[in-house]
Amino acid sequence: MKPTEGRRRVVIEGIQPAVDAGRYPAKRVLGDTVEVTAAIFADGHDHIAVRLLYRHSSERGWHTSSFAALNNDLWSAKFTVDKLGTWNFSIEAWIDHFDTWLHDLAKRLSAQTESTPQDIPMALRIGANLITAAAARAKGSDAKSLKLAAEHLLSLANANLPQYSSPVTEELVSLVTLYPDLSLTTRFPVDLPLWVDRERARFSTWYELFPRSASSTPGKHGTFRDVEAKVPEIAAMGFDVLYLPPVHPIGRAYRKGRNNAVAAEPGDVGSPWAIGAAEGGHTDLLPELGTFDDFADLVRAARSHRMEVALDIAFQCSPDHPWVKSHPEWFVHRPDGTIQYAENPPKKYQDIYPLNFESSDWRGLWDALYNVFEFWIDHGVRIFRVDNPHTKALPFWEWCIAEVQKDTPDAIFLAEAFTRPHVMYSLAKAGFTQSYTYFTWRTDKPGLQEYFEEICAPPVSDFFRPNVWPNTPDILHEQLQTGGRAMFMQRVILAATLSANYGIYGPAYELCEGRPAPPAPGREGSEEYLDSEKYQIRDWSQPPTESIAPLLTRLNQIRRANPSLQRNENLVFHPCDNPQILCYSKATAGHRDAILVAVNLDPRNAQAGMIDLVLDKLGLPWTGSFEVEDLLTGTSYTWKDQRSYVALDPAVMPAHIFRIVQ
Amino acid sequence: MKPTEGRRRVVIEGIQPAVDAGRYPAKRVLGDTVEVTAAIFADGHDHIAVRLLYRHSSERGWHTSSFAALNNDLWSAKFTVDKLGTWNFSIEAWIDHFDTWLHDLAKRLSAQTESTPQDIPMALRIGANLITAAAARAKGSDAKSLKLAAEHLLSLANANLPQYSSPVTEELVSLVTLYPDLSLTTRFPVDLPLWVDRERARFSTWYELFPRSASSTPGKHGTFRDVEAKVPEIAAMGFDVLYLPPVHPIGRAYRKGRNNAVAAEPGDVGSPWAIGAAEGGHTDLLPELGTFDDFADLVRAARSHRMEVALDIAFQCSPDHPWVKSHPEWFVHRPDGTIQYAENPPKKYQDIYPLNFESSDWRGLWDALYNVFEFWIDHGVRIFRVDNPHTKALPFWEWCIAEVQKDTPDAIFLAEAFTRPHVMYSLAKAGFTQSYTYFTWRTDKPGLQEYFEEICAPPVSDFFRPNVWPNTPDILHEQLQTGGRAMFMQRVILAATLSANYGIYGPAYELCEGRPAPPAPGREGSEEYLDSEKYQIRDWSQPPTESIAPLLTRLNQIRRANPSLQRNENLVFHPCDNPQILCYSKATAGHRDAILVAVNLDPRNAQAGMIDLVLDKLGLPWTGSFEVEDLLTGTSYTWKDQRSYVALDPAVMPAHIFRIVQ
Repeated sequence: MKPTEGRRRVVIEGIQPAVDAGRYPAKRVLGDTVEVTAAIFADGHDHIAVRLLYRHSSERGWHTSSFAALNNDLWSAKFTVDKLGTWNFSIEAWIDHFDTWLHDLAKRLSAQTESTPQDIPMALRIGANLITAAAARAKGSDAKSLKLAAEHLLSLANANLPQYSSPVTEELVSLVTLYPDLSLTTRFPVDLPLWVDRERARFSTWYELFPRSASSTPGKHGTFRDVEAKVPEIAAMGFDVLYLPPVHPIGRAYRKGRNNAVAAEPGDVGSPWAIGAAEGGHTDLLPELGTFDDFADLVRAARSHRMEVALDIAFQCSPDHPWVKSHPEWFVHRPDGTIQYAENPPKKYQDIYPLNFESSDWRGLWDALYNVFEFWIDHGVRIFRVDNPHTKALPFWEWCIAEVQKDTPDAIFLAEAFTRPHVMYSLAKAGFTQSYTYFTWRTDKPGLQEYFEEICAPPVSDFFRPNVWPNTPDILHEQLQTGGRAMFMQRVILAATLSANYGIYGPAYELCEGRPAPPAPGREGSEEYLDSEKYQIRDWSQPPTESIAPLLTRLNQIRRANPSLQRNENLVFHPCDNPQILCYSKATAGHRDAILVAVNLDPRNAQAGMIDLVLDKLGLPWTGSFEVEDLLTGTSYTWKDQRSYVALDPAVMPAHIFRIVQ
Repeated sequence: MKPTEGRRRVVIEGIQPAVDAGRYPAKRVLGDTVEVTAAIFADGHDHIAVRLLYRHSSERGWHTSSFAALNNDLWSAKFTVDKLGTWNFSIEAWIDHFDTWLHDLAKRLSAQTESTPQDIPMALRIGANLITAAAARAKGSDAKSLKLAAEHLLSLANANLPQYSSPVTEELVSLVTLYPDLSLTTRFPVDLPLWVDRERARFSTWYELFPRSASSTPGKHGTFRDVEAKVPEIAAMGFDVLYLPPVHPIGRAYRKGRNNAVAAEPGDVGSPWAIGAAEGGHTDLLPELGTFDDFADLVRAARSHRMEVALDIAFQCSPDHPWVKSHPEWFVHRPDGTIQYAENPPKKYQDIYPLNFESSDWRGLWDALYNVFEFWIDHGVRIFRVDNPHTKALPFWEWCIAEVQKDTPDAIFLAEAFTRPHVMYSLAKAGFTQSYTYFTWRTDKPGLQEYFEEICAPPVSDFFRPNVWPNTPDILHEQLQTGGRAMFMQRVILAATLSANYGIYGPAYELCEGRPAPPAPGREGSEEYLDSEKYQIRDWSQPPTESIAPLLTRLNQIRRANPSLQRNENLVFHPCDNPQILCYSKATAGHRDAILVAVNLDPRNAQAGMIDLVLDKLGLPWTGSFEVEDLLTGTSYTWKDQRSYVALDPAVMPAHIFRIVQ
């Protein structure tokens, strides 16, 4: 069957950015300049014209923007996203007969001696017809000007001059271009979606702490007020997200004791992730932490220090959760009528009831979970760290995040999923703003380089934003157990400079807490903390002789001062001949800000090596010397060559963070 | 807005083969086993079940085929295409609660000492419920068997044994698997298309000749009868496609003379591509070549020698073409009412009128062009070499080829497009079965390797089938002008072994005709033949002292005897330390047939080097010696190592074609 219109000769292919051919939105942040590229071409030798269509979802009409031709039939256009939420873009292209004619005329004019006498008059008459057609599409004075131009070409054609020069002015070209013949335009059939977040989605610095340990009185249960007292100190270190584990009532049934003991002792505070008790569930506060007024004060105090409070949303219930009684249909029931607790045979987690996403009342369940986010949004929270999202149905997340962000486009969702790559990526596609990563387990040079090359470049970087953590309350990597202070320094420097989003679980991190819990029977090691705050109150008040807080402060200052460190797609690795030294750079467009980092991955020995700089990625010419300034020490060096020497002693400082002085 | 069914928890992504996400069909040939891969996964730890749906377009119901799990959430399934034409395939996947339970039960059984007494009875009751549900979906005796199995599990649960062994037999698993719960199945939303050609689409050997020069009497215009007389000889060389330049009446207006002279002399035969005269157009024969009966005899004679006649279809008209009068609206008109001839200012091609694909009667034009193919199909032709398809609208090709192949799925279209990569690929996507390539201009080792790596692997190989030509009547590459007989040997060996489809323009090729036309004014060289057959009759009857016909014969024998050379996606390059020696292999599945080729690209000097064989690609173990037999010379060698020595003297034979003897 023939198409309705078979004369649309232009083909548009391979538009980028597009996540799964437009099935999911690509992600950008407010103020970004979005570059759209595509292969666009037609049969034959006619020239084509191309324009970008783009609009925010709140707009009806399309904005247009022009394309520039790159090589090999590729085209590029740009637009700036100045509003949060969903945008769409597409492409229109058509044969540009006027431009084809213009090119043809130029060739004829330059070959007048070889051509037959009627060649140029004929060409001028063809041009007059094209301009007359444009005049018919134009209005008012433009139409008049175009008509006059066409008449001028005709009179020249009739004059039969012995020698012609071009009668086409730049003004005429601009005027004709204003009134293109769009009747045979190819329109790319998909309006590609783009999701625009606020800037903190791309650049954020997280500090996680347990309010239970925030009291200045050892052993006393901490409160929101205690956390509020710590806000100035945390803000002074340069963090801008203060992330709290779940703040809800904690279940009493099967409560876990200290160090994950099967049975709690009297007075044990239990795990904040065993959510729900007589006092309430996901929209209630643990009374020991304080009131909603206290919580509101903490949110306000954080704001006044350029920080935001992020809440941990863990969609699971303790046996005491109100939903267990009010909505038993949201849980899996066993043949004896009891509710199925979490299990990984032979292990039992009887303190946790998972929700059943195959519930016949999935609609009611989805609404209830959505309402949890809405509840905390009403209490001033805009950032959510979602616990184990990979154990909840993906269609739920796609719906829920879109539904929340419809009214609250500045809401940020961080996916705490440590699982297989496709599932992690799928959560990001489904809408999570940021994602936990494998960073913690990427410890050697090839492992770090391969992983960051994968996640910092398209297609992954179009939908997946890494948020890297050297530690979490669940993960004390073996490196931190054995590598000492130098390792804590190294890992946070890597996190802060490889990724625009990073976070630490403190004060465990800055105090270099590295003591692991004993391994479970039959296991070789443990990534759990000894005396983990997940199950008890910790006293962090001892004098911080070993604290690396000054390094954290400096790192976060450097990140704020250097916009190149506030994004990821600009990451470039530079070869170094020492396999223990990882070298990479980030630069802003035009290289106005360029940072070069060299990290010694060996926490015990000084390492030195030669770095082969990829100079054009740093905006440096191929000859001549240049200055680099180490932002950690203030020392400056003059480098004379593309090949430069570095030496790093972990006992002093395991890394250089150089600013290239241009 | 919530989806209609929010409990479809499985995600299906990245199905292959898919050309532009299913916008165009992937290509395969009859009898191929199609491997379908995809990333398929769900939230959580539940097991999933996956099945392939596939069918020929003539079928209503779907066939199903099971998937095997690869690593990293990737799955693979296979099906065989046993019918020409369009096929479709898609994927269904769902949570397999029975398989999840089975896995869970096994873990519980192996940990009985650690578990609480009611653990296994509870698991058995859950299993009984799942089996009862399967029974409800089953029929007849299967339903009965399943019910009994469920009762058996329940009775075991009630028995409260001190120790359990698995009550689930393989038969029970098979039976439950027959009746899956498909109520929450995820169906991939696209039915991906696949086009199945006959085998010659993938493996063909073309011989092009000008019938005008086929007479055994020098100077006399050759006929179809003369060509028929040559069929046995061409077939004996091993060619299976006999391709003729256009056979239609040739225009007289502005006819070109010998060596492309602007004006023809009396008696000049003109270019066969200037189609149309008083005698007719695209559905008529040049009277000098013979009658339709003669043509039919030639088609028959070719068939009887396992060859097919391929026609050249060039959609352009001489000023004498009947369409110029009957359908002036199919051409572009100039302001003075004359028809626009082909031009590239200041060059004029007044003997050619291009067709106007922006004609208001594009529908009529499309029908007329379609009818040309149908006409020749009615005259026994199934293979078309289409001249300059890239100067005709792409939507036309997509419609026309699909329309022809609807009734004639064994029709083969070869695109003669030497243009930019996107346009060439787009023609292949639009439906062309085979495509001319840049092979002619890929002359050094990196150039050849990079190009063939691009076109022999997905995504390109899923839609683009190369047909490589060392020469054509339009292209006598500078290498052939200067490289002598050794170069003719080298290039045809490369063509015949790198690509499953190749062709030559003869007898110019086997007679090593290398004399170029003088360059055009201002040009450095020419790729045109001196005394080109495009404009005159050539006498090829001189004694073929230099003929490489015996090599062609041997090459084509080797291609027929070795199925590994009849496909492209199996091409693998092997490193050689001499930059003048190109080494590559092709093997069939299971390495039953494995061919290793080493070619000396230097036509003047002997070259030697060490090849580092990628042993697993040849089906060879990492230790022990193996035999290789040179199929060009019959000589055998015993190689002892992954690293092997070759020496090639172009004066003797520029290549080895080794068969690996297993």
